[in-house]
Order: sequence, then structure tokens, then C-alpha cells
Amino acid sequence: MTELPEHHKVSHVPATRLNAAFAQKAEDLLPTLHNWNVSPIGTVTFEPDESEYFKRRKRPQFTTAELQDKAWGKGQEFILDFGDHHVGYLKFRLTAQGPNVDAPARLRLTMGETPPDVTEELHPCKSWISTSWIPDEVVNIDYMPKDFALHRRHAFRYVRVQVLDTSAKYQVKFSVIHIEAVSAVTAEQVLALPPFPFNDDTLCRIDAVSMTTLRNCMQTVFEDGPRRDRRLWSGDLRLQALTNYCTFRNNDLVKRCLYLFAALVREDDSTPACLFEKPVLTPASDYIVDYDILFGSTAHDYAVQTGDLETAEELWETVLGSTKGALAHVEDGVFRGEATQAWKFLDWAENLEKDAGMHGAVIVGLKAVDSLAKLLKKPPPYEDVVAEMISKAERAFYDAEQGVFVSGKARQVSWASQAWLALAGVMDAGRLKSALVTTMHDPNALKPLTPYLYHHFAEALCNVGGEEECLQLIRTYWGGMISAGADTFWECFDADDYTSSPYGDHHNHSFCHAWSCTPSYLLRVKLRDWLADRKGL
Amino acid sequence: MTELPEHHKVSHVPATRLNAAFAQKAEDLLPTLHNWNVSPIGTVTFEPDESEYFKRRKRPQFTTAELQDKAWGKGQEFILDFGDHHVGYLKFRLTAQGPNVDAPARLRLTMGETPPDVTEELHPCKSWISTSWIPDEVVNIDYMPKDFALHRRHAFRYVRVQVLDTSAKYQVKFSVIHIEAVSAVTAEQVLALPPFPFNDDTLCRIDAVSMTTLRNCMQTVFEDGPRRDRRLWSGDLRLQALTNYCTFRNNDLVKRCLYLFAALVREDDSTPACLFEKPVLTPASDYIVDYDILFGSTAHDYAVQTGDLETAEELWETVLGSTKGALAHVEDGVFRGEATQAWKFLDWAENLEKDAGMHGAVIVGLKAVDSLAKLLKKPPPYEDVVAEMISKAERAFYDAEQGVFVSGKARQVSWASQAWLALAGVMDAGRLKSALVTTMHDPNALKPLTPYLYHHFAEALCNVGGEEECLQLIRTYWGGMISAGADTFWECFDADDYTSSPYGDHHNHSFCHAWSCTPSYLLRVKLRDWLADRKGL
Repeated sequence: MTELPEHHKVSHVPATRLNAAFAQKAEDLLPTLHNWNVSPIGTVTFEPDESEYFKRRKRPQFTTAELQDKAWGKGQEFILDFGDHHVGYLKFRLTAQGPNVDAPARLRLTMGETPPDVTEELHPCKSWISTSWIPDEVVNIDYMPKDFALHRRHAFRYVRVQVLDTSAKYQVKFSVIHIEAVSAVTAEQVLALPPFPFNDDTLCRIDAVSMTTLRNCMQTVFEDGPRRDRRLWSGDLRLQALTNYCTFRNNDLVKRCLYLFAALVREDDSTPACLFEKPVLTPASDYIVDYDILFGSTAHDYAVQTGDLETAEELWETVLGSTKGALAHVEDGVFRGEATQAWKFLDWAENLEKDAGMHGAVIVGLKAVDSLAKLLKKPPPYEDVVAEMISKAERAFYDAEQGVFVSGKARQVSWASQAWLALAGVMDAGRLKSALVTTMHDPNALKPLTPYLYHHFAEALCNVGGEEECLQLIRTYWGGMISAGADTFWECFDADDYTSSPYGDHHNHSFCHAWSCTPSYLLRVKLRDWLADRKGL
Repeated sequence: MTELPEHHKVSHVPATRLNAAFAQKAEDLLPTLHNWNVSPIGTVTFEPDESEYFKRRKRPQFTTAELQDKAWGKGQEFILDFGDHHVGYLKFRLTAQGPNVDAPARLRLTMGETPPDVTEELHPCKSWISTSWIPDEVVNIDYMPKDFALHRRHAFRYVRVQVLDTSAKYQVKFSVIHIEAVSAVTAEQVLALPPFPFNDDTLCRIDAVSMTTLRNCMQTVFEDGPRRDRRLWSGDLRLQALTNYCTFRNNDLVKRCLYLFAALVREDDSTPACLFEKPVLTPASDYIVDYDILFGSTAHDYAVQTGDLETAEELWETVLGSTKGALAHVEDGVFRGEATQAWKFLDWAENLEKDAGMHGAVIVGLKAVDSLAKLLKKPPPYEDVVAEMISKAERAFYDAEQGVFVSGKARQVSWASQAWLALAGVMDAGRLKSALVTTMHDPNALKPLTPYLYHHFAEALCNVGGEEECLQLIRTYWGGMISAGADTFWECFDADDYTSSPYGDHHNHSFCHAWSCTPSYLLRVKLRDWLADRKGL
């Protein structure tokens, strides 16, 4: 997820009922972040190459050892390559070569996740979201030698180092360059990582990149993007937690995040779409109906994965409250978005008709609440509602002639509608699979814009016997990012044009983004048995 | 003084013989800097006004109280006015107004000594000296409210605050804005300041601005300019020390600086022209013949003012050595610059013929060494040399017909030649005064470019009965800076064009500069009795 555009802002934000006890439980679970140092593999140059996704090809330039001996003066620059994506603090020793350090050194440091970040001019940025996220810092260093550290955390693989000026009397040299990388994931959790059991290089790489993406988003909360936004969104948390259970198993971080949301329930019992941890715990004013209704699903997953029913019991009232916002849209067993102005997300695709998809998402959420109730030996509260919504789904949204779900007056066919109604299990698996596959092959169907919806579509395929198609989608979509050069999975991906942007400027994109980390979950959990039957392909 | 242009660089720099004992004595005298807080008087705007020196007139905008209530978003800016020039650290509290702080705030802060600093674009800077001195900082603040502090020291009266971006969700507000001002001058030293005894508003203002200039240059050493260079130059130290003795009397700081130079004597016994204190004590590679020969004068002044003969005794060998560089240019009692390539300064005026002036400067230096010898009960070593140089001066440099000193083959008439030969006392006072006054009124005479030479000319006038002319020069030159709006005296001053620059760009000038601080010394010491006779004018 990312910050919301202007048109999704609402004038009235319900007041928050701060639950101080829950906030304290979250605080007690604040992780100790783990640090490790990463050295650059050297410097690189880029030359134009139309065959590459980013239209440039990387060439090695100097090794780190060679770089140590180079002196740089006014107007000179180089690009560091750390070999992989990391989140942390850039550090180096700056020394001077020349008779006197008679003036400060002024540097511009640009921390890049992709080649365009460090080869294109990032200013002025045309993005309508805050350009304060552009990852460059202008620093002035008065005295040398200096062990310099950037005190702001950045997310990057590359660093463009521009020497804006030194003086006629000296040039600067860089040594002991490293990232002090940080994550809530411990070395022990990495060592205890369940091995990826399939002998297919592409899938291994997809799995590894998924985990790097997740690790780099796991800080004191599950962040949506360590480069941009850096906040905890409930819908993204759900996917990160699922991927965490089959990889790092840092389950206390999930528990902490659940309590953070439960601490910030609003006076109408809804949960905020996201929250800010620093400088003090604060709910965002944003609200998303589908994120709210899926809070129970996240709580249920946690209870199942950890057996921690005590926490689930404590969260129960919050889970019950989180269904109200969605249920206010259900009339006669059918979801009707027009009931309120509240934002229904599903995906960033423009002009998406959302009633069908939201109908499915609400069923998914309510089913999870019922399952959680059973775990807690409570009567499941929504069995009747779920049954009615499932029974109404076909009439409300299914086009029998086309064999797909449709939404809105124009009977729009979209990936979103198929995905969520399949996840909801509103029909037999055969017809659901057919709807998914038909839509995949329909060039007129509205495709997803975000990995968030691609994930739900892929998961839906697995649920209805579409494992083959799911695997193909993973290879095409997330594998496409890897072919394009991804070290971590991106916030959004247009396979045809790296400059296309939902934010008005690709320089403000996040290239390590929470909701893109799920292939490990899909491969290790949803496709595990199917892949095993095929002996790892 | 300021850093040297390319053509004054020499390829061979004699090695330094570090005197660790002297370095330790200097270290032991490291002052505790004194801090005090200064609040802005409000914000200001500037509008075009051709009648003003800087071509703009200041208007009050918001009071500090009003400013606290203003919120600022992307692209907005304001200018703080602190009412006077200070050296220190800018601090403020940044708070957010809006539903969420969902992105960092990016600010550009430009610390200005003059109106052009905060109203003109400083980048790109065309100066050939390091543009890293341009006093702006781009800062990114992740969380608000934030008590923000610039950790780099700046010298300024104004701050241009540009809000480069916040986000669509919030604007920023500024409160508790202040400078944590610093100086080696203590509150007690300010309270014990000898009153300025003359009831003339202009002279009072000139005296006050001189002292602010000196105070703001007095840090852990006597800096040449707290905005730019920030180093200790021996020639500038001499003038700062003289002004200090009649004002703040922080004599330990003079002692510290004398030991710093004595710690860094070079293998040819010369003293470096300047030195760097941080990060470790280092001599500059620069050498200036006249600065070297005047080191003894600074030591002598210190001994006379403090009575601290123990220190003078310790410095004696350094003082003796510091004469060698100059004496190597004296042949048959006459200074000949061509004897070495070493740099003779006197002033920045282009095409200045320096032999006459240097002849005078060497006599001034040697006389001081002889006086110091007498204080220390030693035989004065240079009485014969001084006598010979005085006796040769008239024949070598005096043009009896014009009644002025000349220098070089083209028999150049300059303020520099008159000033230093008058200070050397090479003739009777009447003829010296006549040479000075004649030159002042000669439009073809080469005028000074720097306050350093204006000072020596003014002091020379006092020495030969030209008090009236000296006072007039003070009123015109330093008073001219005040009329132009100076809060501290400047590195250089072209009364006709604020954009004229010896460095290629006026944005890289220093407007609080050591060698400009001497009017307090001239008024309080050199002109004291004369002014008193006139009952303070």
C-alpha cells in the first residue's frame, strides 16, 4: 500500500479510542533491531542499452580496493554497488589528499534501489506524493579524516556519490564504505530458515527475492516500504505475516502489529487502514473497508500459526468491531459500495468496479472471524451472513454465459472480481477456476495494477486447482521483475515501461514493497504439495 | 586574510618541526566557549530599492509571536531576522499541522550575513574558492514534532527558510527559534568592557560593530572569518590581539594562538602563514613573508599588554627564527622582493609594487623584536639592521619631488608603500604625514583593496600627527560599511558595487572578518587622547 491520493480523503475522521493497555503490550514487543555490515562490491557505470528493462547496462568499474586509492575533486562522481538491496545507514571514512583541508567537502549522496535512481536527475520531481521521499542527501563535512555516517535510514543497493566541491587544495578519498544494515529478522531466524525444497533456479531466485523484500520491510513494524511510506498498513501486514510464517517466523512482530491496530480502534469500532509508530503511536486518518474486514483474517492466521489463543482472545472484541464497516454495505446479502463514501481499495487499477470483489473480500473476512470464534470456543457469529452472501453471489455477480463474475452496471470483467469471489469460495472449484482462467486470457478484462491483487489472484488459483496457472503467473509477474533486474519486489511493475507511474514520477517509487513479498508464501505453502508431486519441476 | 589563489602556491613546503610541548601549552589554553540564546525579532521581506547599498529595502513582516501560528507548505518560504550578527547553531521546534505526518519535511536553510545572501540564488556559485562555504543546508526531518538543531556552526543575522516539501497531509510550523550563539568572549569580559568614552553616535556605532566583529571571530582561536575560512592567520591575529587588549582582554586566547604558531615552526625556522586547529593541529602550506616578520610584533604586544615575560621568553627562539625569511630579502639594507619567490602580501590590490611597503614592514617587525629583547633583558639583535634599513629608505624609495614613497621600476605610488614606511618611522613625522596625506588625495595612487591595509594606513596617520585624517578615513571606510548596512565589518568593501568580488562571486564573501575589527583599537588607543582633547568631538 502507499499513501492515498487526494480524492480518497474524507472530511470526517472518527475519533480514536486509545487502548493504552494494548499500546503497552505492543511497546513491550518492540524488537531489538539486528545490525550487520555490508561492503560494496565496487563501483559501476551504466551505458545505454535498449534491450534492458531500465534501458541501461551495468559495467563494473573499480573494485572496492581500487576505489580506496582514487581521489575525487569538484564535479566528479561515482556509483557504488552493494550487490543487493539493504535497509540501513550508509557509513564511510572520508579522507583528504592534498596539502590542506581548507574548506568543507560538500557531497550529494543518492541512495538508489534501481539504476535510474543513480543515473537520472531526481530533481525536480513531478510526483504528487511528497518529494521529500526522494532519497538524496546533501552533506557538508567540515573536517577530515572523518568517519561519516548518514543518520537517516535509507533503502538501497546503489549510491551515487557526487563531489559537489572540495577546494583547490585537496581532493577526497573514500574508504571503509559500508552499510550498517538493519532488520528485525535475527541471524538465528535466517539460519533456521526452512530450505526452499524445489530445484528450479528461477523459483529459487523468486523465493530468495521475496524473502529479501520481507526482511527489509521488517523493522520495528512490518513497513510497507522502507524507502517510501515506512508505515504499517493492515492489509499489507496480512500478506507479510503469511510470508513470515513460512520463512523467518518472527511471530512476535506480527503480535506487536496486531496490538498496535487494536490499540487504535476508532469510536465506530473500525480499525484505521494504517498507523504511524513514530514519534508517538498515531492512527492515520485513512480508512479502507476491505483492510478493516480482513483484520480478523490476520488475527486468525496468527492464532493458527502460533497457537497463542490468549492473544487472540484479547483481540476478539477488536476483530468483531472490524467487521462493522464492511457489513454496513451488505444489503439483502449483497455488497453495495454506494452505501457509504468509505474507500474500497482492492487495487489501484483505474475505473475498477469493486462491488463483486468487495463481496468476496467480505466473505473471506467473515469466514476467518467464524474460524477464529471456533478456535476460541465461541459461537461463530457470521455463519448466517456468510451463507446468505455466498448464496446471493451467483445471481448478483455471475455471468453464466461468459462464465465469469462481473461488477457494476457495465458488467465489468476484472481480475479483482474473479480473485476475491474465488477466494470466498462462492461456487464449486471448477466454475471458479474457469472464471479465473477465462479472465486471465481475456484481453478486455481489467488487469491488476498492484502486486497486492496479483497475489490474491494467484492464491485464488491455488485454491481451485489452478496451480499450473498460478505458477505461470508467478513466473511471468514476479519473475518478470527479476528479469528486469529486481533485487527486491517492487511496489508496482509495468513490464513495458519503467517510467510509467501511478504517482506522476517513477523516481518516487518504492522498489522494496510489503505487498510484493508473497511468492515465498505461494511457493512454500500454497504450491508446496503440487510442486512436490512434480519433484520440484 | 583568506585562502590563497592558485598563483601563490609553491611547490616546496618546508617540513614542520612540531614542538609538542608548545602544542600542549596551547591545548591547555583551549577556551571553554560561552553560549547564549538569541531569538529572532521576526520575519522580514525585501523590496527593490536602488538607493540602498544592497539594492533592496527591508520591511518587517511577522513578529516571532505571529510566526508561531503560521503553517507553511510546499514551495513557501520566509526570512528570519535575528537583529544582529551571531555565530552559532540554529535551533527550532518543527511541528506539523494536518491529519498526519506521512512523509518527511524537506527544508533548505540559508544562513545569511547580508540581504543578498537570503534573497538571491546562491547556486550555482561562480567563485573560484570553494563553493562548499556557501551557507545553505538541505535537511530532511522524518518525524515531528522535532526539536531540530543544525550541528554545523554558521555565521549569520538572517535565515532564509524554504519549505521544499511536506506532504498533502500536513504543513509545518516553526517555534522556539533561536541561535545558540558561541564565542570565547565571556559574559564577564563583556560586562568589564571599558566604556567607549566619546559622545559621537557614529563613532559609538563603529566601535560597537568592531567589537561584535571581534567577538564573533573569537572562538577556540582568533578565526579570520566565522563564515568562511575559519582559520588562524598570524597577520590577522596581530590586529585582533591589539583590538582585544583594549576591549575584551581575553589574553589567554592570544597566548594560545602564539603557542599554536610556535608549535608549528618549519625546518627553515619560518612560521606558517596560517594553521588549522581541527581535526588535529596542522600548519597550512601557505607562507607569507610579511606575516612571518610580524610574528615578533604580536609577541611583543602580548608581553607589553600582559607582563607575561615567561611566555615571551619561551617564544623568543621562534621570534628570532621568524625574521629569517624577511631578512633573506634584504641586500645592502634594502628589501628586494625578487630575492625569492615567497609571497609578499600587504594587500590584495592588483599590480601592487611591494618592495617599499615590505621594506617598512620588515623594519616594523625588527623593531618589535628589539623591543622584546629589551623587555627580556637581552641584547637587541637587529639595531644595526634597522638603522641601516632606515637610513637607506629615503634613497631607495622616496621621491622628494612628489613628496611620497615610490616602489618598483615604474615608481608606483601606493597607499601600501606610504603606510608601512610611515609605520617604520623612516623619516621625520612631518614628511611622513605629508607623504600619507598627499597619497590619500592623489587619484592616481594605488588604493587598498582590503581593510588590512586600510588599518595600517590609518594607524600610520595616527603615528605622525594625522589624527584628523585618520578619523576621516575611519568615518569614510568603516563608517561606509555601516551606512551600507553592516552589522559586522566585512572582508572587503567596494562602496560602489556590492557584487564586485575578488573571488569571482560575492556570494562567497565573508562579512565578519578578523582584519576589519580594528576601529575599536584605533579609536580607543591610537586616537584616544586626541579625541579626548576635543571632548569626544
